[in-house]
Amino acid sequence: MAPTPDWVKQLKPSGPQGSELLAAERAKSNIPVEKLQQLLLTKEAIERREKVLNVLKSEKVFDKSQNYFSGRMERFQRALAREKKLQLLKRKHNWSFDEFRAATELVGEPGPYALHEGMFKVTVREQGTPEQHKKFGEAAEAYKIIGCYAQTELGHGSNVRGLETTATWNPEDKTFTLHSPHLTASKWWIGSLGRTANHAAVMAQLIINGKSYGPHPFVVQIRDLKTHEPLENVHAGDIGPKFGYNTMDNGFLLFNNVKIPHISMLARFSSVDPQTNKYVRQGSPSLVYGTLTYIRSTIVMQAGSVLARGVTIATRYAAIRRQFQDRDAPEWEKSENQVLNYTMVQIRLLPLLAATFALHFTGKGMQRQYEDNQKRMNEGNANRDSNRRGAGPEETQSGSDTLADLHATSCGLKALSSTIAAEGLEVTRRACGGHGYSSFSGIGSWYADYLPTTTWEGDNYMLTQQVARYLLKSARSVLSGTPPSNDTTRILSNFQARTNIGCAFDILGSDEDVVAAFAWRASFLTFEALKHRDEQKKPWNDLLVDFYRLSKAHSQYLVMKNFFEALKDPSNTTQLDTETVNVLWSLFRLHSLHTLEQESSEFYASGACSKHQIMLARTQTVMALLKEIRPHAVRLVDSWGFDDWVLDSSLGRYDGKVYEDLFYRASELNPLNGVTVDPYPESEVLFKKVEGLAKSKL
Amino acid sequence: MAPTPDWVKQLKPSGPQGSELLAAERAKSNIPVEKLQQLLLTKEAIERREKVLNVLKSEKVFDKSQNYFSGRMERFQRALAREKKLQLLKRKHNWSFDEFRAATELVGEPGPYALHEGMFKVTVREQGTPEQHKKFGEAAEAYKIIGCYAQTELGHGSNVRGLETTATWNPEDKTFTLHSPHLTASKWWIGSLGRTANHAAVMAQLIINGKSYGPHPFVVQIRDLKTHEPLENVHAGDIGPKFGYNTMDNGFLLFNNVKIPHISMLARFSSVDPQTNKYVRQGSPSLVYGTLTYIRSTIVMQAGSVLARGVTIATRYAAIRRQFQDRDAPEWEKSENQVLNYTMVQIRLLPLLAATFALHFTGKGMQRQYEDNQKRMNEGNANRDSNRRGAGPEETQSGSDTLADLHATSCGLKALSSTIAAEGLEVTRRACGGHGYSSFSGIGSWYADYLPTTTWEGDNYMLTQQVARYLLKSARSVLSGTPPSNDTTRILSNFQARTNIGCAFDILGSDEDVVAAFAWRASFLTFEALKHRDEQKKPWNDLLVDFYRLSKAHSQYLVMKNFFEALKDPSNTTQLDTETVNVLWSLFRLHSLHTLEQESSEFYASGACSKHQIMLARTQTVMALLKEIRPHAVRLVDSWGFDDWVLDSSLGRYDGKVYEDLFYRASELNPLNGVTVDPYPESEVLFKKVEGLAKSKL
Repeated sequence: MAPTPDWVKQLKPSGPQGSELLAAERAKSNIPVEKLQQLLLTKEAIERREKVLNVLKSEKVFDKSQNYFSGRMERFQRALAREKKLQLLKRKHNWSFDEFRAATELVGEPGPYALHEGMFKVTVREQGTPEQHKKFGEAAEAYKIIGCYAQTELGHGSNVRGLETTATWNPEDKTFTLHSPHLTASKWWIGSLGRTANHAAVMAQLIINGKSYGPHPFVVQIRDLKTHEPLENVHAGDIGPKFGYNTMDNGFLLFNNVKIPHISMLARFSSVDPQTNKYVRQGSPSLVYGTLTYIRSTIVMQAGSVLARGVTIATRYAAIRRQFQDRDAPEWEKSENQVLNYTMVQIRLLPLLAATFALHFTGKGMQRQYEDNQKRMNEGNANRDSNRRGAGPEETQSGSDTLADLHATSCGLKALSSTIAAEGLEVTRRACGGHGYSSFSGIGSWYADYLPTTTWEGDNYMLTQQVARYLLKSARSVLSGTPPSNDTTRILSNFQARTNIGCAFDILGSDEDVVAAFAWRASFLTFEALKHRDEQKKPWNDLLVDFYRLSKAHSQYLVMKNFFEALKDPSNTTQLDTETVNVLWSLFRLHSLHTLEQESSEFYASGACSKHQIMLARTQTVMALLKEIRPHAVRLVDSWGFDDWVLDSSLGRYDGKVYEDLFYRASELNPLNGVTVDPYPESEVLFKKVEGLAKSKL
Repeated sequence: MAPTPDWVKQLKPSGPQGSELLAAERAKSNIPVEKLQQLLLTKEAIERREKVLNVLKSEKVFDKSQNYFSGRMERFQRALAREKKLQLLKRKHNWSFDEFRAATELVGEPGPYALHEGMFKVTVREQGTPEQHKKFGEAAEAYKIIGCYAQTELGHGSNVRGLETTATWNPEDKTFTLHSPHLTASKWWIGSLGRTANHAAVMAQLIINGKSYGPHPFVVQIRDLKTHEPLENVHAGDIGPKFGYNTMDNGFLLFNNVKIPHISMLARFSSVDPQTNKYVRQGSPSLVYGTLTYIRSTIVMQAGSVLARGVTIATRYAAIRRQFQDRDAPEWEKSENQVLNYTMVQIRLLPLLAATFALHFTGKGMQRQYEDNQKRMNEGNANRDSNRRGAGPEETQSGSDTLADLHATSCGLKALSSTIAAEGLEVTRRACGGHGYSSFSGIGSWYADYLPTTTWEGDNYMLTQQVARYLLKSARSVLSGTPPSNDTTRILSNFQARTNIGCAFDILGSDEDVVAAFAWRASFLTFEALKHRDEQKKPWNDLLVDFYRLSKAHSQYLVMKNFFEALKDPSNTTQLDTETVNVLWSLFRLHSLHTLEQESSEFYASGACSKHQIMLARTQTVMALLKEIRPHAVRLVDSWGFDDWVLDSSLGRYDGKVYEDLFYRASELNPLNGVTVDPYPESEVLFKKVEGLAKSKL
């Protein structure tokens, strides 16, 4: 690296320093950062994070200084080294599950063990027999074998029933033959498979005596445990670079008539009887309702903190970056204005700041509802359940109309929250202007790594069909007069009861009414969709766009409702002073009214509010809320408590040394500055090391 | 690389092959691809492209097979080698300006000579004296010196007046001293500066005798012409990796009291008289109106073709990718549905397909208006101009109210079109589902490289203020009764004349009325903004969000108007059959009604259309248009005529061999598959070459 000359090292940024500007911002507001952080994360989680972070910072392998410079090979290699070290640290410090998870989150990059940890082990545990737990599970737990979960195929994403890989039962020697009959049968996108895993849980169509029994899971060794080369008749590798997620080795996998023993089929729920050669079903492999709901609530909460990272970076930088004078400022006030003072920047950042809280409280609210329900079910429902024997699996498993409702509607929330977070991150990146494009902003790679969340665990567009289907079913039950008792039927019934008298929501005067207006619009769209489907008999395919809107509308209602209820809940707010609670209410209003205004045509159409109200919301209320929240912006993002080590961002530094850090990384860490370039077209020499003599030619 | 086994090589995708599916698509429609392509690109441009493409394909350095795999160092190195080769080819084949530009576009990546070519040479030519043309221009033309254009600083982007770098005149020895007084004065983001350039056109504050005369351009040598190391007291380097644009060496540059001779100051418009030590101004360096307008029309046209690349890839792939059955399909029809048949996919892709044409014709329309005007001005305006001596530079330079109008409103079009293209590309990428994340989709890197267009050449948010300012001025002139004659005052006057009678646009029955409705809404927002500013005396800062909306509304009107006029123009349509012209009209309707529906609240508010019309547009007309356009989708994207070599996309291949190509790249080209990985946490060995023995440790 060419050294930075001394005369450069002595230079400082001009004008008020970043540290002074952030200090001034923090002095403007009384938001109790620590208390708010405890409300968001809990005290235990904060302490856990601190403890683990100190361990990570002291290990050389977690040094981030070359992260943004490296190509895919180096990045993957380093990610693997980090995963290994995390395992060793876990053993050394005897980390709990939560501590280990905190460490993974702090490292903040997808690692090659992720699918072993999160899917392979879980699949064996949940779908294997005790014998299989012993054979595969214990080895996996000890990292003697490393697995992955091989479901998606080159030609088949969301539609699991269309998988082409076959597992054919051989009665003569009691084995299965795994086979990939076509190129499209190649397993594809399988995390941890590309280079790392030596075992795979493979979803394949089970075939017995020429008949297909649908996809089932098989545990298969795919690579040699010593040479790490693929086994014979197995072709496996990495699928190549991606828009994000390049520290992960997503892989492909094909089988050429590979024989595997009877024990390979995970047999807790179904198996092949080796004596009779018959298919045996011992139960339903569908996961328990509640667990899925809990996982989705985690995705929703996570969306809040994922977005908060970008909002933190952009807000701090917007308080430091100064550009132009205010057009109306007096002549004598010559200094440039902090860009955070411009309403065009505020309208992009502050509603997203509000969204971080909205999503967080929504996830938390979902978790609480889930837990409350579990408790109620455990206490009182034993009788009811026993009376229900013979009901379908859905009902016996749910045991509660509320939980069933939570489950169905949480699909839409997953879609909405991951879309808000992904698109919001890009908004925060662009709000950083030119420097937002630099990798050192810390937003670009974070965005790219998060982006797949909008597609996996149910493509966000696909999921909205499920929500719509459920809402239509609920609307039919309301019309038939015997709806189950839950929140969805409550709002639909209310709407239905007011068919002939309409509504009058004081959206700018009452927070409760804002929530009601969101409920009204979602209900309106539900009954509209029902009319199209049931009365006008429109084809399902013609309604997909309406269903998408409907799901979004209903999910937005749920966010407003959960945020509202969180702020009404004394257990959240008693720790805080009145001013802080008022700021949180302002965030609620900004999030809801800004959303309402963005979607105003549906609010008009449903009659939930008037043109005049929307006009006032847009031109008066939202602008006033921006002004109210502006002075608290930096302290509010501080409350998310991201350590600089985690953000790894020049623009988002807590101390405001934005320009110093950008400069340091460019001038001192950038390997490209370690070579000189011969710029003349006639010369074939391209690079020459600055200090050395080695020349490279292309 | 591990070889792909023979048994894998024999596999084909299951079901109907991609090539069959695309052939079937092409058989469904009679769109004359070649004719439409000629309308879009002109015959000469197509032939030029073909000729140049053949040259490029035959040169090894343009081989793209490792593009997606390489890290920044290799990518930059290869980009430099390509730039060098392009120069040599230009000389060898005696390429014209247009041929060379075609070659650059076909290579399709930002190259390290770009700012030498596009800014350094131009700056010297336009702002230098004949003596400077000789000294700097000729050397630059011959690539004896390589330059860049150093304006932006670490702490200063859009606001040129705030630049900190100083050039102080030394009367004693007739030199200037270039100096960077602060860290924020460091030049930053300067293309071609990081490693390549040995000269720079530096914008610095000219200081004579303690007084500042504002930013002026100075040509300065910054690196040694032989060793390529920075000169003494110059610190220069690459600013590091970015979200996109990594084949370019954006750089930084600082000066420590560097003395440069008198001739360094580009002196066509202003200079320092070395005798009197006085500042001398010979004219205005502001660029000619028309040129800027012409450049903007190019950005608008380019936005159409930039977006068309993503739309081509996603549309072809959506015709090949099949997923689920149609829910309403009969039981016996078991095969999976092409995703292009789903309305949720259509609503994402087809309006963007329409937008590619809309933007293209808008850019073309702007160019034609510009040229018509130039002609009229050259013919008849000599008299008028001579009567106007003493008028400000704006008026004498424009010579035409129409051109002034085109110029001012084209800022908004630049913002709108680059936003549509950038965000549209991301929509097309996501519409490809999982495989859209693969680099082999060809969209991700294209998107990332285009993205900065939304920020540079005037930040898209900033530009909208300029448009609003001009619209307010126009509205004032209408109210005062003496407006200049141009399109903006025409629509504003029309709106004003109908204040008391309102409007009634048949948006679903008349194409002309759709355009009028867009004009109405833009005019409504203009007068609203004027009321806020002039009557209610609202602060400028409080109106920025309104201004943004206003600029967008007016620019959308311009797009609709230009698209409409292009289709009305027989010189565009006489070459085409009626069916094709009808499809183009459907694209016009889809683009305009879909946009209208997205922005419906403003259309309501302005009274430009009714709730019922919007509802019909959404549920009936737009859905019907999707159905109409669907069969022509593949031929329409074919008409853009992208060569597979240009697209470099597995998903967008003309022959539909999507899965074969994804597989080939992953299995045969991916360097990560050239190493094995030791996956055990205890082992420090990470990588081992598949064939060799070399081990690497981190």
